[in-house]
Amino acid sequence: MTILAVGSVALDAIETPYGSRDPIVGGSATFFSYAASFFVPVRVVAVVGSDFPESAIAMLKGRGIDLDGLQRAPGKTFRWSGRYDATLTQRVTLETCLNVFETFRPEIPEAYRDSRMVFLGNIDPGLQRSVLEQVRSPKLVVADTMNFWIDGQRQSLVETLKLVDVLIINEEEVRLLAGDHNIVRAAEAVRRLGPRILVVKRGEYGALLFQGPETFAATAFPLSSVVDPTGAGDTFAGGFIGSLAREGEITERALRRAVIYGSVVGSFSVEGFGLERLETLTAAEIDHRFAAFRKLVDFEPA
Amino acid sequence: MTILAVGSVALDAIETPYGSRDPIVGGSATFFSYAASFFVPVRVVAVVGSDFPESAIAMLKGRGIDLDGLQRAPGKTFRWSGRYDATLTQRVTLETCLNVFETFRPEIPEAYRDSRMVFLGNIDPGLQRSVLEQVRSPKLVVADTMNFWIDGQRQSLVETLKLVDVLIINEEEVRLLAGDHNIVRAAEAVRRLGPRILVVKRGEYGALLFQGPETFAATAFPLSSVVDPTGAGDTFAGGFIGSLAREGEITERALRRAVIYGSVVGSFSVEGFGLERLETLTAAEIDHRFAAFRKLVDFEPA
Repeated sequence: MTILAVGSVALDAIETPYGSRDPIVGGSATFFSYAASFFVPVRVVAVVGSDFPESAIAMLKGRGIDLDGLQRAPGKTFRWSGRYDATLTQRVTLETCLNVFETFRPEIPEAYRDSRMVFLGNIDPGLQRSVLEQVRSPKLVVADTMNFWIDGQRQSLVETLKLVDVLIINEEEVRLLAGDHNIVRAAEAVRRLGPRILVVKRGEYGALLFQGPETFAATAFPLSSVVDPTGAGDTFAGGFIGSLAREGEITERALRRAVIYGSVVGSFSVEGFGLERLETLTAAEIDHRFAAFRKLVDFEPA
Repeated sequence: MTILAVGSVALDAIETPYGSRDPIVGGSATFFSYAASFFVPVRVVAVVGSDFPESAIAMLKGRGIDLDGLQRAPGKTFRWSGRYDATLTQRVTLETCLNVFETFRPEIPEAYRDSRMVFLGNIDPGLQRSVLEQVRSPKLVVADTMNFWIDGQRQSLVETLKLVDVLIINEEEVRLLAGDHNIVRAAEAVRRLGPRILVVKRGEYGALLFQGPETFAATAFPLSSVVDPTGAGDTFAGGFIGSLAREGEITERALRRAVIYGSVVGSFSVEGFGLERLETLTAAEIDHRFAAFRKLVDFEPA
């Protein structure tokens, strides 16, 4: 099942205690589609400026990512610049230059409109809805959002959430959206807004999945070396939806395995700057870490 | 296998957004022994003042806890008074009155000296060693500690750690003790100090277990109602060691199951003030939540 992903493609600048990169290819659609490409074909709708390097295009195409929906606009590519603290859990934004992303209007190519799985990356909730208006009959609509939209565009976001099957957001965002610190109650409140499935990302602690009366708790993979957390959430989403699309049906079992695949790909992502670790990642490594997850959480081993 | 527990017994005062209690029976040895008593017999060495109520003694004895080692000293019982914030994750200490606990010297009754499992609660590391000098040949020595001792008595704590098989401490304390924010690396560093087994408590996120080359990650049980987190760590330790003692052998499997039993009992503890929820807890409820943990983390259900 092919995935359509809409979001940002960026040229970031990143500083962590382990080094720095400027520019480095980033953006939610980039991380998402790269991660998902390990599982199924992905189509991307996004915008880049005239400065976006051909080498990066080639890198993404090399993973089989369909870039026919990538718009080229005059001007510069979206740029986010940030610095992480020694713990890699806090970061300051040094600069956000929307550039060509400021006037981005997602145009879904005719050939993409039959996509069955749609990932609405973290963009204006109104633009998220405009994507859905252009897609014929998606089987599953998955969305991400962030505090910026929860605070500034709540009503528009609520309209979008009515159209969403799966919402993937982080713990603080669930709390903010629900106005309740308790995650179980907050998840219930958010699901009443529309998404029947909710995935709560908890960074280095893992993720929670809520569907129907079921709750699934996934731990994160303990890593002795974390270099750059940028894009971990988008990579998680890519692995999650990629795995779901590969399984082809939205069962509780498929959803739970998808959370683990998301965690697996996300755990690799943070081991390098930007996409650097994912660029060398193999299917065998993914399978190996998936198996390691089994061992990691099994409390009744033979 | 009987457990010997040494620690504090207190009369606390607690305020949370959900109510308050003053006084309420608390203390590390109290929570620990109450939790462990669901699994095996427990012996307690601690001190209380003349104000400690007979009703509390009766409550503990009612769980079969052996209080022959509980010293009665003239003066008041140790008192901790604290207030939790709306999220229940931050608390301020309003008052700490050591009272009779200030001059507490653990005296292990002759009848206790054959104890095979010893839990050294969060007391001065020198006193922890004095307990071990009085116990003949423990099969397993488990210790807790806190930032107060890590900061103020590091050398003494390091001496104690050489004698400890299992260290149970929280995430921030592991980081502080190791001087490394990365939990995997910090755990390695702490284990080089002595404890061959390390349990890292992560509050609402669960716990990590490190033994040999093995890592086990347990999630916490998602709760829609948390009332009072006081004693959750000690209750976790009690369930953990109680389960280990009941299994009778220190295998990887027994350790992993013990982490889950600790999480189970700890999850009940926070549903009420102090010991209130544990006072109504049944073995059937423990078994039921243990089974719920299986479902919670199983990502390949039938």
